[in-house]
Amino acid sequence: MAAVALVQGASRGLGFEFCRYLLLNKSQAAVIATCRNPEASQHLAALSAQHADRMTVMKLDVSREDDIKRTAERVKADFGKVDLIINSSAMLHPSGKGETSLRDVSAQAIISTLTTNTVGPLVMAKYFAPLLQKGTGAFGQQFPEKEKQHSGIIVNMTARVGSIGDNAFGGWYSYRMSKAALNMATRNLSIELGRGRSKIVCVSLHPGTVNTDLSRPYHRNVPKDKLFSTEYSVQCLMKIIDTLNIDKTGKAYAWDNTEIPW
Amino acid sequence: MAAVALVQGASRGLGFEFCRYLLLNKSQAAVIATCRNPEASQHLAALSAQHADRMTVMKLDVSREDDIKRTAERVKADFGKVDLIINSSAMLHPSGKGETSLRDVSAQAIISTLTTNTVGPLVMAKYFAPLLQKGTGAFGQQFPEKEKQHSGIIVNMTARVGSIGDNAFGGWYSYRMSKAALNMATRNLSIELGRGRSKIVCVSLHPGTVNTDLSRPYHRNVPKDKLFSTEYSVQCLMKIIDTLNIDKTGKAYAWDNTEIPW
Repeated sequence: MAAVALVQGASRGLGFEFCRYLLLNKSQAAVIATCRNPEASQHLAALSAQHADRMTVMKLDVSREDDIKRTAERVKADFGKVDLIINSSAMLHPSGKGETSLRDVSAQAIISTLTTNTVGPLVMAKYFAPLLQKGTGAFGQQFPEKEKQHSGIIVNMTARVGSIGDNAFGGWYSYRMSKAALNMATRNLSIELGRGRSKIVCVSLHPGTVNTDLSRPYHRNVPKDKLFSTEYSVQCLMKIIDTLNIDKTGKAYAWDNTEIPW
Repeated sequence: MAAVALVQGASRGLGFEFCRYLLLNKSQAAVIATCRNPEASQHLAALSAQHADRMTVMKLDVSREDDIKRTAERVKADFGKVDLIINSSAMLHPSGKGETSLRDVSAQAIISTLTTNTVGPLVMAKYFAPLLQKGTGAFGQQFPEKEKQHSGIIVNMTARVGSIGDNAFGGWYSYRMSKAALNMATRNLSIELGRGRSKIVCVSLHPGTVNTDLSRPYHRNVPKDKLFSTEYSVQCLMKIIDTLNIDKTGKAYAWDNTEIPW
């Protein structure tokens, strides 16, 4: 059966580029692209029209558990399995700018950020784990030994600033906290879903600083060679995904395949 | 000016014991005890009646930012400063039992847990940081060099299961994620509040497995000598607090003063 990849948060930025990459470079893969407002993303509609036989766009608000449940049911009915899920949607802060000091912190903004960046990916795992367990291991690199083979892969997009140990500058409270908690989710998922016969590999990936809307307010502070295009970042990340196996589960990797400390 | 300590989440468990300890062992300290429903805690009312000259109980729901703001204003008016804040209130999960598997995860329950365990302590820091900066360094151990002295201390109660690196068993999604994110908050706070002339020391402390309502469903799985009384745990933690200084900020320590990895 053909490979099935689902990209959550596919309307723009890295999520959109993951879809494009998969369509161009994984000719056997069906791509399910989810986002909050498919109507509002002309890019996604155009890509989907170009690849109508292989691409399906589904409306999914990752902050709504019933939406996630319904989407998983539809994917089950239409595809019967998933081999790869990439949780890509994220916000820096509802205002678009990370907190520069404690004065900017608000309970409501942290909770919004946590809901999208952290709770969403975990609830995705809840409803899609059974479909990933039915996966045929079409992504990553399989071990020859059957007992070490995986059926599916979950990729949570993290960020280096979500590393507690690597945090030297502070600020960006909501975003940093959401990604630290997401890394815990990745770790926890890797343990629960790494058992048994149908193993799911779970990793956090850091894309580098990428030319997207999320980082736009900060681009002028980034040296040109450190500001990646979405194309370059996704190339690097897909290279990592292509070599994932169960021994690499439960960790955070940067775009250059180095491990990031918690 | 006399020392001022504020214990958030003081109606029971460790928070209550911190109040009792401070009243008995820090004879110069004024103790502010906050909790959601002071009317419902007979223990706290009795303790407060016994120490009416040194103890003040204030109603504070840590999930309400306006409540925290109002309480900080009242503390400012009545005391003018704070030397030590202990954020103690926490829940394992709204049901009282941590998730044993992904099936038990719900978006609503994670968000509730994050709101109390993570967002609450950070918003406390937001409103109380100015009062801690007016602290007189009455807790911890001061350096002789003036430029290394601290004015106040923030203690966030964490848990070893909130360590991502130490996580070998999985489960307890909400609680683990809330404490990992809280550790990031501690780290971020230590950076922002460790600068300048009025330094605030910020640490996460792990109390061990303590005989409280939070851990009650799990007591029979804990060897007797590993299940601490609140008295013992608070004694250990206060010994750590008594030796805190700015060089020890931004880290997580267990009850035995060993550092916990992130």
